[in-house]
Amino acid sequence: MSGDSLNWERSLREKGLDLRKVKGRVKGFRIETPSWGYADSGTRFKVFKQQGMPRTLEEKLEDAGQVHKFTGVCPTVAIHIPWDKCDDYGKAKAFAKDLGLAIGAVNPNVFQEPEYMLGSVVNPDAGVRRRATEHLLECAGIARLTGSRDLSLWMSDGTNYPGQADFRQRKAWMEESLIELDKAMDDGMRMLIEYKTFEPSFYHTDIADWGMAYVFAGKVGDKAEVLVDLGHHPLGSNIEHIVAFLLDEGKLGGFHFNNKKYADDDLIVGSVNPYELFLIFTELVKAEDDPATSGCAGRIAYMIDQSHCIEPKIPAMIRSVLNIQEAHAKALLVDRGRLAEAQGKGDVLAAEACVKDAFDTDVRPLLAEVREEMGIDPDPMGAYLRSGYEKGKLARG
Amino acid sequence: MSGDSLNWERSLREKGLDLRKVKGRVKGFRIETPSWGYADSGTRFKVFKQQGMPRTLEEKLEDAGQVHKFTGVCPTVAIHIPWDKCDDYGKAKAFAKDLGLAIGAVNPNVFQEPEYMLGSVVNPDAGVRRRATEHLLECAGIARLTGSRDLSLWMSDGTNYPGQADFRQRKAWMEESLIELDKAMDDGMRMLIEYKTFEPSFYHTDIADWGMAYVFAGKVGDKAEVLVDLGHHPLGSNIEHIVAFLLDEGKLGGFHFNNKKYADDDLIVGSVNPYELFLIFTELVKAEDDPATSGCAGRIAYMIDQSHCIEPKIPAMIRSVLNIQEAHAKALLVDRGRLAEAQGKGDVLAAEACVKDAFDTDVRPLLAEVREEMGIDPDPMGAYLRSGYEKGKLARG
Amino acid sequence: MSGDSLNWERSLREKGLDLRKVKGRVKGFRIETPSWGYADSGTRFKVFKQQGMPRTLEEKLEDAGQVHKFTGVCPTVAIHIPWDKCDDYGKAKAFAKDLGLAIGAVNPNVFQEPEYMLGSVVNPDAGVRRRATEHLLECAGIARLTGSRDLSLWMSDGTNYPGQADFRQRKAWMEESLIELDKAMDDGMRMLIEYKTFEPSFYHTDIADWGMAYVFAGKVGDKAEVLVDLGHHPLGSNIEHIVAFLLDEGKLGGFHFNNKKYADDDLIVGSVNPYELFLIFTELVKAEDDPATSGCAGRIAYMIDQSHCIEPKIPAMIRSVLNIQEAHAKALLVDRGRLAEAQGKGDVLAAEACVKDAFDTDVRPLLAEVREEMGIDPDPMGAYLRSGYEKGKLARG
Amino acid sequence: MSGDSLNWERSLREKGLDLRKVKGRVKGFRIETPSWGYADSGTRFKVFKQQGMPRTLEEKLEDAGQVHKFTGVCPTVAIHIPWDKCDDYGKAKAFAKDLGLAIGAVNPNVFQEPEYMLGSVVNPDAGVRRRATEHLLECAGIARLTGSRDLSLWMSDGTNYPGQADFRQRKAWMEESLIELDKAMDDGMRMLIEYKTFEPSFYHTDIADWGMAYVFAGKVGDKAEVLVDLGHHPLGSNIEHIVAFLLDEGKLGGFHFNNKKYADDDLIVGSVNPYELFLIFTELVKAEDDPATSGCAGRIAYMIDQSHCIEPKIPAMIRSVLNIQEAHAKALLVDRGRLAEAQGKGDVLAAEACVKDAFDTDVRPLLAEVREEMGIDPDPMGAYLRSGYEKGKLARG
Repeated sequence: MSGDSLNWERSLREKGLDLRKVKGRVKGFRIETPSWGYADSGTRFKVFKQQGMPRTLEEKLEDAGQVHKFTGVCPTVAIHIPWDKCDDYGKAKAFAKDLGLAIGAVNPNVFQEPEYMLGSVVNPDAGVRRRATEHLLECAGIARLTGSRDLSLWMSDGTNYPGQADFRQRKAWMEESLIELDKAMDDGMRMLIEYKTFEPSFYHTDIADWGMAYVFAGKVGDKAEVLVDLGHHPLGSNIEHIVAFLLDEGKLGGFHFNNKKYADDDLIVGSVNPYELFLIFTELVKAEDDPATSGCAGRIAYMIDQSHCIEPKIPAMIRSVLNIQEAHAKALLVDRGRLAEAQGKGDVLAAEACVKDAFDTDVRPLLAEVREEMGIDPDPMGAYLRSGYEKGKLARG
Repeated sequence: MSGDSLNWERSLREKGLDLRKVKGRVKGFRIETPSWGYADSGTRFKVFKQQGMPRTLEEKLEDAGQVHKFTGVCPTVAIHIPWDKCDDYGKAKAFAKDLGLAIGAVNPNVFQEPEYMLGSVVNPDAGVRRRATEHLLECAGIARLTGSRDLSLWMSDGTNYPGQADFRQRKAWMEESLIELDKAMDDGMRMLIEYKTFEPSFYHTDIADWGMAYVFAGKVGDKAEVLVDLGHHPLGSNIEHIVAFLLDEGKLGGFHFNNKKYADDDLIVGSVNPYELFLIFTELVKAEDDPATSGCAGRIAYMIDQSHCIEPKIPAMIRSVLNIQEAHAKALLVDRGRLAEAQGKGDVLAAEACVKDAFDTDVRPLLAEVREEMGIDPDPMGAYLRSGYEKGKLARG
Repeated sequence: MSGDSLNWERSLREKGLDLRKVKGRVKGFRIETPSWGYADSGTRFKVFKQQGMPRTLEEKLEDAGQVHKFTGVCPTVAIHIPWDKCDDYGKAKAFAKDLGLAIGAVNPNVFQEPEYMLGSVVNPDAGVRRRATEHLLECAGIARLTGSRDLSLWMSDGTNYPGQADFRQRKAWMEESLIELDKAMDDGMRMLIEYKTFEPSFYHTDIADWGMAYVFAGKVGDKAEVLVDLGHHPLGSNIEHIVAFLLDEGKLGGFHFNNKKYADDDLIVGSVNPYELFLIFTELVKAEDDPATSGCAGRIAYMIDQSHCIEPKIPAMIRSVLNIQEAHAKALLVDRGRLAEAQGKGDVLAAEACVKDAFDTDVRPLLAEVREEMGIDPDPMGAYLRSGYEKGKLARG
Repeated sequence: MSGDSLNWERSLREKGLDLRKVKGRVKGFRIETPSWGYADSGTRFKVFKQQGMPRTLEEKLEDAGQVHKFTGVCPTVAIHIPWDKCDDYGKAKAFAKDLGLAIGAVNPNVFQEPEYMLGSVVNPDAGVRRRATEHLLECAGIARLTGSRDLSLWMSDGTNYPGQADFRQRKAWMEESLIELDKAMDDGMRMLIEYKTFEPSFYHTDIADWGMAYVFAGKVGDKAEVLVDLGHHPLGSNIEHIVAFLLDEGKLGGFHFNNKKYADDDLIVGSVNPYELFLIFTELVKAEDDPATSGCAGRIAYMIDQSHCIEPKIPAMIRSVLNIQEAHAKALLVDRGRLAEAQGKGDVLAAEACVKDAFDTDVRPLLAEVREEMGIDPDPMGAYLRSGYEKGKLARG
């Protein structure tokens, strides 16, 4: 390769990639941001309060609207019940619409009511189990009102000590509750079942890994799929492999993007291990191109779920969106033909280099062009910071 | 509790446990030892050669016979093909029988042929894939000859680098091969599908976790079940939960017992974390008592799979058997009624204490009694060491 | 070993252990409980409020007094500033004395003030650094007033993102602050420097491991030693080895006991991995017996630091104390002569068995005897639960 | 940022970086390759033999010479004793010189002799300890003959079971042996002490982490420094922080570069987590620029230590060198002034972006220019593959 051969345009040309198509896919890639990502959050030790935090769903939508305004690709906002509970969801929907937004996934909360200390839908107390299931049903109803396709279920249930509970009894209760929820959901709605290795429980989690989420999704049926949160695996997990496996099974329903170095750190996506993020996108792009998996891939809900403990919330969200776009754009630059050839010949180094070459390419100029074509500032972060919105937020009191 | 209340006999009485039944279950619990556990093994850095190692299947069976002789509970021996390949399996079977033994699970080897560098049944080369599948079919044939019920499949395939291979293509090849194997297996035979998080591959493993093994087992059908090797999980996995989950799904087929602190350390079972082993047995005993799971639990193959790098092999195996028996006996002492009551009331500390109390009980006197009733020495390790067999082995040259 | 040889008394006799000495060491082993362990705590997702929680230092001391009353071995209580800040520490000291207690280690808090979001003594803002150091100095003053020997420093500082801060500059600031604190401490006081692999920061922690704590302790000088919290290591750490290493260096100052399966789970000590706890005590007992290390070992502060998210606080504390006592008593039963002999001969299995044998011994009857000799109930948990104190707490409102 | 602002040249200009200096530092950065990296290696399950492997030190040097020829930055080769033992080191040195090479670090082997099963310099047998120490002394002698500055010590000693050995006794033996070695080393020689969390031992490793290596280095004195192997940490370690800490202490002596996803996977450096590699270089470059640390930083031995199990050896080595150069070049592009400013203001996102921006820059064109200025092919991998050397190797038989 000569010195200038790595320019991204020439690189595209050499690979026979159609620039317009690449740009089109980048433009068409939508990322959902979470209402709670605009509010204060923290660790068990401290929630550092920042000024100008949104106090209502409306204010969270306004903040989310900024992210969409400057990135152009974040038109939906996930909500969390009861944090975003409203008297009038129609009004909220209309409010969002005026901002160019729509309500996205509805996220029930089964970890915060005092009764849930020992579990929600798997609580030893039948009354608590009922109440938790009713909450899920309520959320299905809210999704109907908000026009949301997806119910995003993080069942945080688990135990802290050996012997505390009966694993299999709780498994049966979980299944029962999810099946009841399924029946209450309209056709076209989806139940995204999240898994997590630990936290807030420290001995066992009822849906601890993708395999358990997959089994539950299978019991529920066609509406249920698995949701992958990038921070919910043990260290030493190959997430892109899990992603490919679920795609192949037609059961990958969505993502909660964030990044981790240790546990469920909920950091800005791509900030700790950008290569991992790119490798995940390499699988996603490939699955979109493959008729066997394109149906599943096409339905995936791409959502951010982060906890911005020390950084300003809107810039952190913009940063996350940009990082996702970079990973996506790089994945689009993989020379699939050359890769398949190297794989077929067992040429390990050539195959590895083929993937890494796309990652090493600086796609920021490409993304800047895409943004200009979309009529937004090529530098969303700079534009947002210059907009004065951050300062304006302070007036919220 | 008063000072002497913790004597195991009184403890049993207080819990209303039937001593005879407990003893009966201990006596009836069978553990399979592996032929390769009697031979030299080591790390990638060094295999330290010990003297008197068995050179043939017959000599390995003789060593395994010693373990059965002194423990009374190890009547079967797993074999590994091609390491234990024979001209005449009928003869080997008869040789085993004369030692009071039978051939147990047949273990194919898909990691050692030079062609398998980039994979066996998922190799990019169709010829290699064919050869690997033929090896699996050969092993099914051997199982028929040895009268073995179980084919124990550790598919070690994986890759070392991002991009090296196409995950989903390999998944399809894996499925294809296992289904072909299934068709070649007699009714009543079982295919035990093992999973492993990493090693010998360091980027991805085609069957990396229980979920993947479970999915493959589901594709294959009724004959296929999942095999749990205690060393094949990422750190921070709750194995007893996985065990309970698989039992509930009716898909737990067998165990490879050993212990780990870091990776797949293959140490003596119970030597690093004896409480974990006990908690696994707590699930197993419970599943045996429950009609919903007793069928699956009753079929489980309990096998040891260790790598004795620095210790004498036969004593290490005896030690492992004793540790398993202790964990099993302790699990039989859990006061299930009191536990269920505490769980039902959400009394976390009482439930935890109920399980821990059984673990804290010293069951060695109970096991000594059991052994005397079985007509063997109450101290198997001492009896073996005094027997002179270790010294006799040295004559092997 | 014959069937009944494992009775603990006979076991002691066979090992030539002096029962009176063993009992004496058990009786003499003191465990400090933390004031904050009696109050509500939780995860970032939820603090489940329990009824009857202590609202003042006095009420926390009352609760701690119950633990001491029923266990007989917990006469000191660690305090946390500002949570336990008082107008009159002399009065608090006297209040404690009336309950048979004394104030133990003083724990500064450098993680909760709003200014500390980006660090305390290593904050980029010099004013914040000053304020944080002043807080440390204030705590040294409080220790003087409460007659506490130990300042227990958990410097929670760290960063969340690559590039966020300059590691080496922060190292210099940390050193500077600790040295200033050292100068303010009286002779005879100790600075216990804690380390932690992650949380509340998720990219780097300024004192991330024992090596960093050790280096800082070395810069500070003789008053400074390292504090080992059992939950503050990466998975796959051999804590007993670190303990032995620090003992050998004369720099092991104290423990924060708890247990973990994943991260800093802060569960009841001994509840997840009791064997690990025992192995740590095996090193501690050995170091007490060795003139080369007995000085250091004799100074160690044994403290509990747990977070009881779902369980009643006082019973959880009693349970922890009992588990520590069991681990200690078992460690006292190791046949040191036989162990040294086996180690010397390189008899791996005999050495391992020697240690494991002590662990497998049920020491609960021994502990019951010890308690009777101490004039307390042989069953502390039962006695406490029967005492009515839990119910009485509810009156606190 | 506008679309083309990210071109690396413009980026340099904007940051006020001196292109000539950047290029100069890239050109001046030397990487040592290991003789054993050119030969077959594998896992405990299988060493896949490749054709044309070097059979002698001379042939390994020839292979290493190729890496130097095409990269221009690998003029030294680490040797391993006894694998590279010679009758005449003067001759080997001359042979190397003719290839434009020199012998680099001498690596003793204390893991392969049959006597070392239970340890080398810490073996329970005094005779074995003596023999192991003699081997270290022999290697110091060899270093004198080869003109090597560095002795690179990986003390692989450890144990597999609790109780197997006395940690503190072994610590004393380790210290004693290293001090004896130190006395035998000439002034100007260095002892690089490596640490490793586990493997080949699975319970404890005598030098398990950087803290232990640091303590031993301190006992030995000025000649001893710590060697960081990127694969030798538990998952969830911040290596760049350790690197910065050791630099600050003036005790960072060298690197063994490679990459890992799970354990000590020994993969091509930068192939799993390129961002981590870059962050390490960010610390190294900074330390070179700082008078307080430039002395230590200037002495660092940058060495590759990998195990190429499935890939061709020379290309794998070239790939590793290129990846290191990219990480280094990117680290040189960090805008240090802007970074310090953002850090000083506590602007987390700006600081993070500043570091990430350098990583995202495609430095391959810059490196191509550098190579052209050095008179070598701008594409070392392509040039090597076209050279015919791989094919020529096959003639070795």
